[in-house]
Amino acid sequence: MSEPLAIGVDIGGTCLRIAVVHDDGVVVEQRRAPTPANDPNPLLDVLADEVAGYDEVVPADLPVGIGIAGMVTPGGIVRYGPNIGVRDLPLGPLLTERLGRPVRILNDASAAALGEQRVGAGQGHDDVVLFTLGTGVGGGVVIAGRLLVGASGFAGELGHLIVADGGRPCPCGNRGCIEAYASGTAIGRIAVDRLATSDEPSRLRQVDPVDGPAVSAAAEDGDTFARDVLAEVGRWLGVAIASSVNVLDPSLVLIGGGAAASVAPYALPAARDATAARLLGAAYRPCPPIELAVRGDDAGMLGAAWFAAESRTSVSP
Amino acid sequence: MSEPLAIGVDIGGTCLRIAVVHDDGVVVEQRRAPTPANDPNPLLDVLADEVAGYDEVVPADLPVGIGIAGMVTPGGIVRYGPNIGVRDLPLGPLLTERLGRPVRILNDASAAALGEQRVGAGQGHDDVVLFTLGTGVGGGVVIAGRLLVGASGFAGELGHLIVADGGRPCPCGNRGCIEAYASGTAIGRIAVDRLATSDEPSRLRQVDPVDGPAVSAAAEDGDTFARDVLAEVGRWLGVAIASSVNVLDPSLVLIGGGAAASVAPYALPAARDATAARLLGAAYRPCPPIELAVRGDDAGMLGAAWFAAESRTSVSP
Repeated sequence: MSEPLAIGVDIGGTCLRIAVVHDDGVVVEQRRAPTPANDPNPLLDVLADEVAGYDEVVPADLPVGIGIAGMVTPGGIVRYGPNIGVRDLPLGPLLTERLGRPVRILNDASAAALGEQRVGAGQGHDDVVLFTLGTGVGGGVVIAGRLLVGASGFAGELGHLIVADGGRPCPCGNRGCIEAYASGTAIGRIAVDRLATSDEPSRLRQVDPVDGPAVSAAAEDGDTFARDVLAEVGRWLGVAIASSVNVLDPSLVLIGGGAAASVAPYALPAARDATAARLLGAAYRPCPPIELAVRGDDAGMLGAAWFAAESRTSVSP
Repeated sequence: MSEPLAIGVDIGGTCLRIAVVHDDGVVVEQRRAPTPANDPNPLLDVLADEVAGYDEVVPADLPVGIGIAGMVTPGGIVRYGPNIGVRDLPLGPLLTERLGRPVRILNDASAAALGEQRVGAGQGHDDVVLFTLGTGVGGGVVIAGRLLVGASGFAGELGHLIVADGGRPCPCGNRGCIEAYASGTAIGRIAVDRLATSDEPSRLRQVDPVDGPAVSAAAEDGDTFARDVLAEVGRWLGVAIASSVNVLDPSLVLIGGGAAASVAPYALPAARDATAARLLGAAYRPCPPIELAVRGDDAGMLGAAWFAAESRTSVSP
């Protein structure tokens, strides 16, 4: 019989999701609410209301784990949360006080990595790297069974591994990060650039806008041009994966995030080839498998719940 | 009063160094011997003889830690040791049996990272990244006070962060690794290429061969061309450092290895600028200091000794 482990929350750009996460990875009593943006007070109100909705069904000291896009300190301060338009918001301390429960906050992709490692595609692996493909490219790293947090709380930003210094502009302000080659936005831009410089036929020439979903849809419909674009994206992803494996030596690499499933059939074979060709000492070591994540939108809530449950002895602030 | 912590060994390409390492970082009773290459038996003999030389002065169960260039599994098998010309040598198990002492073996740059973090430039930092500049570019990573080892034992190969996919050829067989831009060998090659494509005066035009030490010497003598080469090397190094900081979030980045001191005056300022310009969320976080390592040739012995002392409860094989 499974027991409630923690309340897991995923704060997305438009919608926040919340559920009771059980210690076997089952998610129950799931709720959703629109994410109030650009003002912390309504956000705090919504979070407090939603968590209070569980007061009758879970223990009063059950912790709350929250995944959010952006940079979060170990003390639960959201230094920068682009989706909700906040800076330096002490969300952890404020919520801890308001809820009377232990609260831990972490980056959403790091949360997803922990969720997949504990109760997803990474179960049984102590060392797991996750790249998330969506509007941007996120990442999370589990080492020896522990989430890599870093000195400032900002570790695991695999989307900003630089694969081609001076290359495509990245939303972070730098050039040549893998996010500039493998995000949904980047996929659309690569397709537009290739359409402009080639005569190759493609149904994408009749599509507007040519964005990530349009490229994936065309690829699924058999469009060779679109499949080639995704193979190029996969090759770039393999460069970043190789760098991450050379440094982190995981036993498994996972690809998750909203765009992963539609991109994977055409990008993953290229990513695997590109990784194997760039791995240090490939003759003397296994190349870790590169697989799709399996917990989908739940991964962040799951990992946030595990993060909160496992750090009850060191509650923020 | 300090106590012996472990016997530390650094197996270099031409010379092996061995000493008793004390728990305050003091190195005593240091010995040296030529490294027998291409045959494991003389190597085992030399190691056994040198360690036996301490039998009268240290406890019989004092462990032995060995740093070696190459890829070493957690069980002490040297999968690939280019300096000593071996493959799949179970050096750890063989030496454990022969010496009657616990033996731990690890990559030399990982050992140096641990040594610097415990009793060198990284003291007081729990999260440290070390790049070693020498014939190649090595690396080691300490996270939350623990050496990053990885699933196969091969983690920390920062020299094979890919900074320019498809760029300069790297000895590993790939192109565009930071080793292809910042090793001693690479520095010489970059200088030769720039001499061939520019008319700029340089005393390097009268030097043969133009290798890493020659470039550093010219830079020290005031040669502007040579200083520009080292600044370019530093800029590339900053690209790799930025990638490593985006993923690992250390509070300190160290530059060590045989070439570090001579390259640093001209390369480190450029490396710091390049890192800061590429760091994710630089407005919301500290950029970790990038400093020279301080324990020089002792760092590997020190870190190997610490590694062995701290893993006495999980002795190989």
